[in-house]
Amino acid sequence: MSQARIRVAVAGASGRMGREVVKMVLADPELELVAAVARSTSGIDAGRMVGVEACGVEVTQDLELALVESKADVLVDFTAPQSAASNTRLAIRHKVRPVMGTTGFTPQDIEELDKLCKENGIGGLIAPNFSIGAILMMKFAAQAAKYMPHVEIIEYHGDQKLDAPSGTSIKTAELISQVRGELRQGNPKEEETIEGARGGYYDGFRIHSVRLPGVFAQQEVVFGAFGQTLKIRHDSYDRAGYMPGVAVAVKKVMTYEGLVYGFEHIMD
Amino acid sequence: MSQARIRVAVAGASGRMGREVVKMVLADPELELVAAVARSTSGIDAGRMVGVEACGVEVTQDLELALVESKADVLVDFTAPQSAASNTRLAIRHKVRPVMGTTGFTPQDIEELDKLCKENGIGGLIAPNFSIGAILMMKFAAQAAKYMPHVEIIEYHGDQKLDAPSGTSIKTAELISQVRGELRQGNPKEEETIEGARGGYYDGFRIHSVRLPGVFAQQEVVFGAFGQTLKIRHDSYDRAGYMPGVAVAVKKVMTYEGLVYGFEHIMD
Amino acid sequence: MSQARIRVAVAGASGRMGREVVKMVLADPELELVAAVARSTSGIDAGRMVGVEACGVEVTQDLELALVESKADVLVDFTAPQSAASNTRLAIRHKVRPVMGTTGFTPQDIEELDKLCKENGIGGLIAPNFSIGAILMMKFAAQAAKYMPHVEIIEYHGDQKLDAPSGTSIKTAELISQVRGELRQGNPKEEETIEGARGGYYDGFRIHSVRLPGVFAQQEVVFGAFGQTLKIRHDSYDRAGYMPGVAVAVKKVMTYEGLVYGFEHIMD
Amino acid sequence: MSQARIRVAVAGASGRMGREVVKMVLADPELELVAAVARSTSGIDAGRMVGVEACGVEVTQDLELALVESKADVLVDFTAPQSAASNTRLAIRHKVRPVMGTTGFTPQDIEELDKLCKENGIGGLIAPNFSIGAILMMKFAAQAAKYMPHVEIIEYHGDQKLDAPSGTSIKTAELISQVRGELRQGNPKEEETIEGARGGYYDGFRIHSVRLPGVFAQQEVVFGAFGQTLKIRHDSYDRAGYMPGVAVAVKKVMTYEGLVYGFEHIMD
Repeated sequence: MSQARIRVAVAGASGRMGREVVKMVLADPELELVAAVARSTSGIDAGRMVGVEACGVEVTQDLELALVESKADVLVDFTAPQSAASNTRLAIRHKVRPVMGTTGFTPQDIEELDKLCKENGIGGLIAPNFSIGAILMMKFAAQAAKYMPHVEIIEYHGDQKLDAPSGTSIKTAELISQVRGELRQGNPKEEETIEGARGGYYDGFRIHSVRLPGVFAQQEVVFGAFGQTLKIRHDSYDRAGYMPGVAVAVKKVMTYEGLVYGFEHIMD
Repeated sequence: MSQARIRVAVAGASGRMGREVVKMVLADPELELVAAVARSTSGIDAGRMVGVEACGVEVTQDLELALVESKADVLVDFTAPQSAASNTRLAIRHKVRPVMGTTGFTPQDIEELDKLCKENGIGGLIAPNFSIGAILMMKFAAQAAKYMPHVEIIEYHGDQKLDAPSGTSIKTAELISQVRGELRQGNPKEEETIEGARGGYYDGFRIHSVRLPGVFAQQEVVFGAFGQTLKIRHDSYDRAGYMPGVAVAVKKVMTYEGLVYGFEHIMD
Repeated sequence: MSQARIRVAVAGASGRMGREVVKMVLADPELELVAAVARSTSGIDAGRMVGVEACGVEVTQDLELALVESKADVLVDFTAPQSAASNTRLAIRHKVRPVMGTTGFTPQDIEELDKLCKENGIGGLIAPNFSIGAILMMKFAAQAAKYMPHVEIIEYHGDQKLDAPSGTSIKTAELISQVRGELRQGNPKEEETIEGARGGYYDGFRIHSVRLPGVFAQQEVVFGAFGQTLKIRHDSYDRAGYMPGVAVAVKKVMTYEGLVYGFEHIMD
Repeated sequence: MSQARIRVAVAGASGRMGREVVKMVLADPELELVAAVARSTSGIDAGRMVGVEACGVEVTQDLELALVESKADVLVDFTAPQSAASNTRLAIRHKVRPVMGTTGFTPQDIEELDKLCKENGIGGLIAPNFSIGAILMMKFAAQAAKYMPHVEIIEYHGDQKLDAPSGTSIKTAELISQVRGELRQGNPKEEETIEGARGGYYDGFRIHSVRLPGVFAQQEVVFGAFGQTLKIRHDSYDRAGYMPGVAVAVKKVMTYEGLVYGFEHIMD
């Protein structure tokens, strides 16, 4: 297949996620890096910046200029919430499909950007989570809860994390909550001899947050029923684990029109 | 809800699975036990036979007579492969919906029985596996393999089990194999210093069978990708774990026409 | 080896644990059942009572009489806290080694009974937990905490259990606490967005109690350090799982003098 | 505590493990980096080489010179099997305690080096594995096998690993084998319908090797007994996970005389 490669521009290229995106695009034979934009770093070769060999694409500072000159098909943006909506608008106006790994969109933003995508005949994606494994875990958890409504979530993160429970565990809890009927689990007369032992309460079930050094991000959703348990567990070892999801998104966004919110909706 | 309870007849009522079915039907408020058939034991109260209080239904030996006299809505049959097809035919002719936990049906049998069900305007189900958790595990494994094609299966059973790998693990492997493209995993130059260490080969991936005392039936399907792993694990602790699935089947079979093969197809 | 079998009397023989002990003794070729004592049931054959074939030992009601007449070497007692100390005293006076699976001993009781054992030249054991696996888990957890002090405990029990955390998890926490220096784990600025998510606090670390149907008793102790985690997990599937430990105790108690408190101390 | 810091020299400082050692020494307040030796790289600051700030120690090429000039207390050596024995000899002669993370010593080497250590009144350590978690896992596995002799090992590594089973799993199997009596596990009539499913045979039990992308090094040792299972699992996420063990070794080697083989022997 001598199919043309997809032309990819990366915004936020010098950030922790942006660097991984640059590396991934350079390594994927179906993708071609055509622009790398970063506020602070500029002038250096994008390949060199991420520790691989030079690729001939210089890091620049002006996103609009980069999108126009590079004739990019897709923009992958891991910048900041403040610039998310405006960068998306900019990309769509130049018919560059946005793949946004940034949060900070209001429902109004999403509605407007979806309309804009359709007017321009292109697809777009906003995804707070690009980890295929994590998304499958959440999807399966929601499916299982219909049949095995008794469930608890145990999530593990590094011991310096500030908030508990994790965003992913709350998202999972919401999805479970939507599919099962009202159910307050456990013995109504249950008593904690050490306060908090039973975890955080969420709509009838419990979330437990473990914090230990050496752990990056792990979650286990455990379902219990008469004579059996079902566990769905995702272990994320590092930031690079999100890249296969970004690669899928870049390819998929070429195939539809309109703006999709949530990576799970572009999975078949 | 003053809805009428579903009238259930049980064949093979004195067997290990049959006894569990009798107990489950007696305990479920939406179900009513109207007949219990067993070759060997007869004359005793079905409740007593399974160690609970008397229920007023005597165990009898003649299936056809029992179906006719009891006006059963559903027959749950955990007898033997030899009687499976003829029992199913008998039930359908009397407009009793068959829920068969027996193997031994040929594709021709299934086609014929499906036609017979439709002619009689009733539903039916043949299910080699009634464990909701095990079925969800297989379903999720097949879904995950589309996105994370690198996979291995580890299954655990009691140490006296004769065959390896288990039927469930082979069924899981088949489902995975159907959804992913050709993929021979691992390093092509890999060498075993102890023969068999890498497990059993199935269409590009591996199945490992662990046999230990104390284990009833467990299986873990592990998917690996860049920076992450996803695990789906089912632990079955005893035979009673299949009953929630039988209960779902009995209720569901009242709602459709035709014969369904495989419990997974009646799950939404 | 034509060695004489150890003569075993069982008190509380008709209880849930007592029945398992009777079965275990009848099945172990090194042990001989010589008496079975129960308050309520009497006159029936002990084998029949537990659902195996008759063994020629009738269940009786008087413990002292049974000990004297049977010339028992060892008494296994799973009665109640109220009778525990007096039964132990009774056994020792008749030079029958007590193996007590009952709680309810005061430190004074233990001191006195130890003295009594020594005076009579026999061994004895009081053990709140006979599960070899659970005891190994606790022992390993305490050993690991010396080298990997960052730890959390997650314990799983059936959803009708009243108290949280479990006795075993608290015992494990105590053992960990004794071997490691002062250490308040986690980020001091950590915040719970759902109260209780971080679990129950015990001397610097956390215990999480999961309650789900289908689970009997499970515990996982997780240690985290730079770039690695170590997990020690015990899954108990049913009451019978305690019997191998009782068998070890019955044999071991023949080999020493004095009263030992805690099964872990008779493991090599 | 105004205690003097331990003066550490690192050989093989520019290698993958050596760089981690340099970083660890620079970060540990009880240790002081006094020399960094590497064949290829020289002249650059050791801190800079590993991506942290300059530390004032230049990388040099001559080990003997470095040891003499730096007045090192301890040499940490992650070079190659060929130079292992001679580097150790060199260090001992200059009364620098060797901590060797290299393989390639013969039993004769070890005997000779032990004698040499004692003559010079210093300690030394040769350790093929510095992962505290992995060593604890092996130690616990050997302890558990005495009480729960039915066991299987499942080890997980990246999918490009060439050999199966892993060195750690074979070492674990040896340790288990030494403590338990002869025991051929499983049903003697067991049959594999897919060859290799039951794993690699080692003295009566089985080792299973899983190979998946995303995995660095994991191992689970599973013990099964009547009604229970005990699992000991170690997950290693990256090379840095070995450093806490190296730090312990450097401090411990200051406290004894003679050469120890195996990190486990310096753990209390």
